[in-house]
Formats: sequence, structure tokens, C-alpha cells
Amino acid sequence: MTSPSPAAILLICCPDRRGIVAALSAFITEHHGNIIALDQYVDTANGVFFARMEWELDGFTLPMDGFAAAFRPLAEPWGIQWSLHLSTARLRMAVMVSRQAHCLYDILARTESGEWPVDIALVLSNHPDHRPLAERHGIPFQHIPVTAATRAEAEPLQIQALRDAGADFIVLARYMQILSPAFVQAFPMRILNIHHSFLPAFAGARPYHAAHDRGVKIIGATAHYVTETLDEGPIIEQDVIRVSHRQGIDDLVRLGRDLEKIVLSRAIYAHLTHRILVYRNRTVVFT
Amino acid sequence: MTSPSPAAILLICCPDRRGIVAALSAFITEHHGNIIALDQYVDTANGVFFARMEWELDGFTLPMDGFAAAFRPLAEPWGIQWSLHLSTARLRMAVMVSRQAHCLYDILARTESGEWPVDIALVLSNHPDHRPLAERHGIPFQHIPVTAATRAEAEPLQIQALRDAGADFIVLARYMQILSPAFVQAFPMRILNIHHSFLPAFAGARPYHAAHDRGVKIIGATAHYVTETLDEGPIIEQDVIRVSHRQGIDDLVRLGRDLEKIVLSRAIYAHLTHRILVYRNRTVVFT
Amino acid sequence: MTSPSPAAILLICCPDRRGIVAALSAFITEHHGNIIALDQYVDTANGVFFARMEWELDGFTLPMDGFAAAFRPLAEPWGIQWSLHLSTARLRMAVMVSRQAHCLYDILARTESGEWPVDIALVLSNHPDHRPLAERHGIPFQHIPVTAATRAEAEPLQIQALRDAGADFIVLARYMQILSPAFVQAFPMRILNIHHSFLPAFAGARPYHAAHDRGVKIIGATAHYVTETLDEGPIIEQDVIRVSHRQGIDDLVRLGRDLEKIVLSRAIYAHLTHRILVYRNRTVVFT
Amino acid sequence: MTSPSPAAILLICCPDRRGIVAALSAFITEHHGNIIALDQYVDTANGVFFARMEWELDGFTLPMDGFAAAFRPLAEPWGIQWSLHLSTARLRMAVMVSRQAHCLYDILARTESGEWPVDIALVLSNHPDHRPLAERHGIPFQHIPVTAATRAEAEPLQIQALRDAGADFIVLARYMQILSPAFVQAFPMRILNIHHSFLPAFAGARPYHAAHDRGVKIIGATAHYVTETLDEGPIIEQDVIRVSHRQGIDDLVRLGRDLEKIVLSRAIYAHLTHRILVYRNRTVVFT
Repeated sequence: MTSPSPAAILLICCPDRRGIVAALSAFITEHHGNIIALDQYVDTANGVFFARMEWELDGFTLPMDGFAAAFRPLAEPWGIQWSLHLSTARLRMAVMVSRQAHCLYDILARTESGEWPVDIALVLSNHPDHRPLAERHGIPFQHIPVTAATRAEAEPLQIQALRDAGADFIVLARYMQILSPAFVQAFPMRILNIHHSFLPAFAGARPYHAAHDRGVKIIGATAHYVTETLDEGPIIEQDVIRVSHRQGIDDLVRLGRDLEKIVLSRAIYAHLTHRILVYRNRTVVFT
Repeated sequence: MTSPSPAAILLICCPDRRGIVAALSAFITEHHGNIIALDQYVDTANGVFFARMEWELDGFTLPMDGFAAAFRPLAEPWGIQWSLHLSTARLRMAVMVSRQAHCLYDILARTESGEWPVDIALVLSNHPDHRPLAERHGIPFQHIPVTAATRAEAEPLQIQALRDAGADFIVLARYMQILSPAFVQAFPMRILNIHHSFLPAFAGARPYHAAHDRGVKIIGATAHYVTETLDEGPIIEQDVIRVSHRQGIDDLVRLGRDLEKIVLSRAIYAHLTHRILVYRNRTVVFT
Repeated sequence: MTSPSPAAILLICCPDRRGIVAALSAFITEHHGNIIALDQYVDTANGVFFARMEWELDGFTLPMDGFAAAFRPLAEPWGIQWSLHLSTARLRMAVMVSRQAHCLYDILARTESGEWPVDIALVLSNHPDHRPLAERHGIPFQHIPVTAATRAEAEPLQIQALRDAGADFIVLARYMQILSPAFVQAFPMRILNIHHSFLPAFAGARPYHAAHDRGVKIIGATAHYVTETLDEGPIIEQDVIRVSHRQGIDDLVRLGRDLEKIVLSRAIYAHLTHRILVYRNRTVVFT
Repeated sequence: MTSPSPAAILLICCPDRRGIVAALSAFITEHHGNIIALDQYVDTANGVFFARMEWELDGFTLPMDGFAAAFRPLAEPWGIQWSLHLSTARLRMAVMVSRQAHCLYDILARTESGEWPVDIALVLSNHPDHRPLAERHGIPFQHIPVTAATRAEAEPLQIQALRDAGADFIVLARYMQILSPAFVQAFPMRILNIHHSFLPAFAGARPYHAAHDRGVKIIGATAHYVTETLDEGPIIEQDVIRVSHRQGIDDLVRLGRDLEKIVLSRAIYAHLTHRILVYRNRTVVFT
């Protein structure tokens, strides 16, 4: 549970060495931070230490803009990679969407009802269809047509639009165009995608058709960070639902829509609340 | 629910045509059979009709050995493929196993406690390890060593042993050798396998290692009929369990063992109670 | 899968007797109806037969307004209770809501995007908060204040509003007031409710608090028809999600919202597509 | 994942105060313990801190028999309640069983195959039926008849038998007699039970009948520590499976057996590996 009072969140990754937890918690305690959550995990096979520390800012004697300087003497000798976040800071999210709108509807509803501490900076689409939906929520909408043939010209425009909107991260909410490596590199580990299968099964196009064809008894959805290789980025969240021979492809699509929107939203929540560390194309998600 | 009193079970597959259900149920009713379960399914995309009918034998006026002759005038014009089973007949099952015994333990326990209407005809292994376990349950055990190199000589011995034991069907309970096409053809749609992944993800060897490597958030197990192509036979049953970054490969193996034995046992139960129809490498399982 | 072409759907409940399936399917076949789905179930303990038959209207020789007269000679001697529905008819749904809007958002999104063959006749609330949301979707909104103290005066107004709107059925989408028996009797088996627990556990108020207090490892949500006894109507659908000690009450509420909206929507879909039969306070749901 | 090399496991519960993590990890680090797992949780509502620390004994400079004295200066001022365990110590488990044996079979299989680091000290039953099963595994079996009427005389004999066997903890593997408060007090938080429902739903007798009667769409099983109030002890683990109207009571019993044995075994594993802390009738399970 995230603390309702202002808190700092520190994400850490470093080589695993004796005393790392003691050193980290001593550092916070010395500056009178009250740790309200400490999750740690050691990848013993690779000797890597991961942690998420959350402490109340009330009473913490180190100002946030002085944190880096104060933490450096600890971080450097231990080889610590870290990022610091404030629970009170609101991220700016851009949503990219094509024709299917169920994930977009779900994101807009959660944002409007205050479920998430986020601002939607932009809805960007390769189709004009969902302009009324976005604008009804007071969200800027931009239509930039893209096809496989026009991707090279369109992507710089998209990237510029996302930057102009000040997007901290991007959610592909059933966006059906492939992103070029250059696009992905512009927002490293800051693009979340929902794929409508239980990856790595049924990567690529038309996964529900492929699932029906194979006769699986369970279908799934996968939220992952986008990397340069299609459908192979680090997995953040997955979920599944049982099906049987009775479900035709239309039924899989219908049942899958619910999976997709819930799985994507769980991943967005984890990203927003700074619970995800990425390492070796896998994620550590502290829930 | 299977009727506790003697019942006949008819499995049917034919082109879908108007009136097929009426014709089938009229046939049973004419001979005073009381239908206690009728499951049907139409694959509308391919125009194929599937059904499972179960009726009480008490009062049914057609003797079982006269069924084929009486049913032919109905079956032939409609192009019906069918099989007839008695709920009171006990099938004979052979179990093939290698070193890991958790599925074997589970199968022996269910059989011994009377959960399943089946007799175990033989435990056949490429290792001698589990002879005491089988013999403790009074089950014949045979050890036929097999490696990839000796498969060609070993398989005829295995097939002979299974035939000598009078096995109606074969369960691969974590049997780790690949079967040749000739072996599979000797027992078509009568070999059940458990694969320790959520197929089609992680087919082949060491699926838990592959799942850990890919960083999936859910692992699974798949029971399927064995066909000539490895891990591609028709799927009977699947189930999954959530995992996180905290689970190392050893944990996946430990958690997966429970999935494997339960999923395999559900598939065996469906096979034993004549609930499975196979079509186009998919299964219709009437549960 | 519901047929995309016009179809008739017949729901049936009667004492189980030999030949009922044959008689029913013969009736449809005689009138040249092509059965595309036939689901049946026999409650052997109570001797009751249930069925859902769906057949294409194309080619069916019996006009819908002549169905009752033609079916009576079959229905009466067998004691058949039945209802007939057209797959092309659009039902009118009223939604009652209090302050929490996640289920309402989900219902509006599904309806607007054409996922469901339904028209929303009215959003009725005991609070004025969600008028803008409803009106943005072009849905009539009515605010009738209700408290436990004013229920006796308010309910007749509510019932009148629902009747004026021509509502075929009513969805309580996290409506937090208790309905009187008189209200329930005005819409028998036509009011669906979502309760935010895995019933019968944690009936009544504040189920997430109670679940947290009891330390359960799984929480759930339950969609049911409303009867005169609170939280005891026939269950249509349930689903669950794992939790641990780490989840505080706020987390249960957050995770539960997703369960609630998905479970309620599955129940609405089953109701809309005429898949539910109620008997002895239980449901038969043909999916 | 439990370390394969010898490790110490410290379970801790104390009032939450600033610096507790730093103090604990400094203590282990000072004595050159390499922490391989540290799980902590703060119940912010009640201000209670829980932790499980696991560190390698290789290189740890404090002998185990000196731990208490060395730890006291830290533990006392912080009000720490703690217990220390060695990963290499094998606990002694007693199993109490009545007529249904599926959980017993599963426990015996896991123990025999080396899945669990445990010795079975005794199988104790109120029926003689499973003596051959226990003895086949080389496990002592004792038959002490008990009925509600004879409980007062039988329980002292049972308690004595459990003590004579040197049982560290007791598993009720579908043991169908109620234990008196005196019995429970003899083994506080050391008796694990499996209840065949999703508690708190369907506490008491015949839960599958009650679940069928209520028409639930999901059934469950619950493993919990036994306290003086029947079925109300702290829950360790739960799991569920979907059912429909098609499943009669016999089917619920059949499907439930698999749930029961898996849920009970997960709870036993968590107990064996010292992952469970109990507080306010709830459990913190560090998995």
C-alpha cells in the first residue's frame, strides 16, 4: 500500500554484497526517514541485489535536491544504480491507440475518477475515430496517420508530438502499428504495450485466431515494456482466463478484451507507483 | 456427473445437418433409453456436429451387441462416426515414467483409493528406480532401458510389453524420452502426455528454465494426446499458477509439479469417462 | 457463440421425462428450424430438465406470433415452462448507481462501443454526482434521493421512473441502498446486483474490511439476481483474485473494483443473451 | 527460494519504529552473515513490524547457541519477539487422518520423494483403515478411536501419543473430529488444518453440500492454524476452482479433493520453511 502522506521512493539495483541492506537502511535512518516499505530481492544466480525503499518525508532531514550528493558516497563504492521518486509527483502519460477502444475507455475512466495519480498528456492515434471520446474527457487528441509504408515519415511527427505533450511515458492501448527501433530508443523502458496473448505463446498478429487454431484451454494477455524486438520486451504482468471448445474466435476476442484492459491497467499502476525494476529483459515488480 | 447406475455413452461426430439432434434422441427414446446427459456442440465454422449422449441401460431395450446393427441405418446416411462405451467397463491403463515420480504417485493414489474406474496394467520405465513403488501397489513393473541411441531397438520391446499387458491407453507421466512416429501410430489418440509448460509456449526441453529466462508471470502445464510432432498434439487440459521474480527455477519446478499432476489427472479422468472427441488437432471435452 | 444471423432462443424448464429432448428437437426440425445451439442439463437429484435451444429463423416456417399456439400441444402435457426470445431484439436496461462509478463507466463504455446489444434506458441515482457522466453519453439521468429513512416515499418514485423509461431489467452498479421487498417484487428476477465479496462470505456492509479482518488470501465479487433477502439471491457469476498480507484495505478496494466490474458485466452479458435459468435459488447459466 | 547451503532463519515481530531494519541488518552484517533473503512488512494500521531474515551460516561468526545472548541487547529495547531456525534442521510432523486419504497419500508421496525436509513421526487416526498405507511407507501408525462421546477420554491418549512421537507440529489431513480447547492449547499454532471450503464461507460440516445448495460458481479450500474456535483460526493459504450448475455434489467432492491436498501441502511447506508469522488471527506468509 502506498502511503497517503508524502513519501520518497528509491529504486535500487547493484551487485549483491554483504551488508548492502544494513548500509541502505542506515543511510535512511541517519537522516530520520521512517521506512514504511522495504522490498528487496536477490537474484542469487546472477549476484544482483534489487530493492525498493519507501519512507515518509515528514521528518526526513535531507532535502530532495540534496539527495544525490549525499547518497553518492554510498552509491559509488557499492556500484548502485538508483532512481528517486516522490509519491506526490504526478506523471504525464500519453496513450497511443488504433481502432479498438476498450483499453482507452478503461484508462480514461480510471484517470477521471481519480484512481490513478496521473495526468493524460495526449491521446495519439493513427485513426481519427476516438477524437470525440478523448475530447469529451478534456484530453488533447492528435491524429497522425501511419501505415507500414509511411512509418518513416510519420514516426518523427509522433515522437515530436509526444515530446511536445511532455509525456513521461507512453501506453500502447491496443495500438496496432509496429514501432521502429528509433522510436523505441527515444523512450527507453518508457513504453508499455498490451499484447493479446499469453506471451511468448502467439506473438505477432492475430493471436486469438492462433489460439483458437491451436485449441488451447486458457487464453491470456501480457503487458510488457516495448523493446526493439517485437513482443519480446520485459513482461510486467500477465493474466489468463479458461476457455473451452465452445468459445469461437469472437468469444475469445470478447473475453480477451476484459483481460487486456485489466492487465494493462495493473501494469500502468505498477509503473506509476514506481514498483518496477528491469534487469536482463525481466522485471522485478514489488507489489 | 456420471450416473452411478449402468449407462451407455455414445460419442458422435458428423457433418452438421438439420434434424440431427432430433434423429439421435428419437433413436434412443424409441428403444426406451432414459437420456441422463446430452452434450452437443456445433463447430459452425466447419459445419461439424459433436455430441456425447449418456443414457441408463436399465429399461433400454436394445442389447449392446445389437447396437451397431440397429444404429447403422441412422449412422450411415448422416455420415456419423461414433463410438459406444459402457460406464461399467473398466479400462486398462499403462503408465510410462522416467525418474520424476510425482505424477506416478498421484495416479497410484487415485487408483488405489477407488477414485477412478481403471486398472493399471503396467508401469513401464526406462529406469529401474520406481519398481518398489509400483510393486508396493501390486502393479506389474517393467524396466526397458531407452536412450536416443537405442530407441529403434527398445521401442518394439516397449510396444510388445504394452500390448501384452492389454493396455487400452497409455499415460506418459513425465516420461522423458521422445516417442518415434511408429510408436505413436501403434496407439493413435491413446497416448496422453503431460508437458510442463503452457503450450505452445516453451515446447521442447527444459521449459521451466525457458520460462524463468523469459520472465513470465504465470507458468502452466498442458495435458495432450501424443501425435507424431513433439508437443503439438491436441490439448486436453491446461492450468496455470502465478509466479513472480521471487521464484527461482527450483521454485518453478516445485510449483509446477503440483500443476502437472493435477492437469494430467484431469485429462485422464476425461479420457476414462469418455468425454473427449478429437477433431482437426483440437479437442471437444464435454465436462 | 451467438449466431450473427437472426435466431430464436427458447429457454425451457420442466420435469425430466424420457423423450423430452427428442420431442423438443423434433418440434423445431418439423418447422425447418436449423438448431445452432442446444444446451441441456438435467438436475438428476430433483428430476428437472433445463434447456436452451437456439435456431436460425431463416427457413423456419413458424411465425413468431404463432409460436405459442403451435408449441402449446407439446408444452402442456410435458409441463414445460418456457420463454422465447429473438436474438435481434434489443433489451432496455436501467442502471442504478450511488457514488462509486467504476461499474457505471464500464457499462457505458461497453454499450457505447457496441459490445452489447442493449439500450440504456435510464441511469437512476440517489446522488446527483454522475449526471454529467450519463448525459455525456446521451443517457437520461434521474436523481431521486433515498436514505433508509425516506425509502418508503422514494421507492414508488423510483419504480415509476424505471417503468416510464421502459426498462426491461435493472442493474445495480454499486447501488448502496437496500431495496424493499415491494421494489424487488416489481421486477422479479430482473434486477442484477454486484456484491463486493465472494458470497456467501462477507454478506452485508463493508465486505473488504471484513475480508481484511479475517485475513483471507483471496477476495471475490458476486453478481446475483436480487431477491427479498439481502445478498441471498441466485448467483449468476463470481470471480476472485489472490491477495496477501501486503494488501491493506485500500488495496483490496482497488483490486476489487476490477473484479466487480468484470463480474457484473459477465452477468449482464449472460442475461442479455438469454443464457440464464433460475431454479430453487440457483442459476443454470448456459455459456 | 531457500538456500541449499546451511542458513539461519530469523522470524521477527515488534512495534514498528524508525531504524528497525537498519538495526537488524547491521546486527547480522557485524557478525559477517550474508543475508540471502530479507522480507519485511509493516502493518501501518497497527504499527507492527514483521520480518523474515535468512543468511548463510558459512562465514557467520556467531555460534547458534550464542545467538540469544548476543541478540538480547538488541531485542529487548525494541520489544522484539523472535524465533530462530536452521534450514538444515528437519522438523517432525504428525498426521491425523480419518477415512478420506487423499491428503495423506499426497503428504506421504512428497515426504518419500524428498520434496520436503521433514520426518513423519506418526500417523494417528480414529479409524484403523490406513494402517497398511502408513506402514508401507515405514511410518508408525496408531489407532485411537474417538467419537464426540468419547473425546474426553481419547484426547489425553492422543496428546500423549503425539508427544511420545516427538511431533513438532500436527497436520489434520481431513481429520473429521473436533478438537477440544485443551487439545489445541497443548500445541498452540502448531496444528494445521485443511477445511474443504473457501472460509469463512461454509464453515462447519458438509461444506460441499452447502456450496451446492447455495449455487456458488467457485469452490475453495482453506488451510489454517487451529484455534479454540472451529474453522476460525488464522488462514495460511486458500485456493479455488470454477464450477457450474453441471457439477453435482459428487463432482464438487471430486474436484475439491485436489484443491484440498494442494492447499494443505502449500501451507505445510510454508510452515516447514519458517515463512509464517501469526498476528491478530491473521498470517503474514513470506513466500
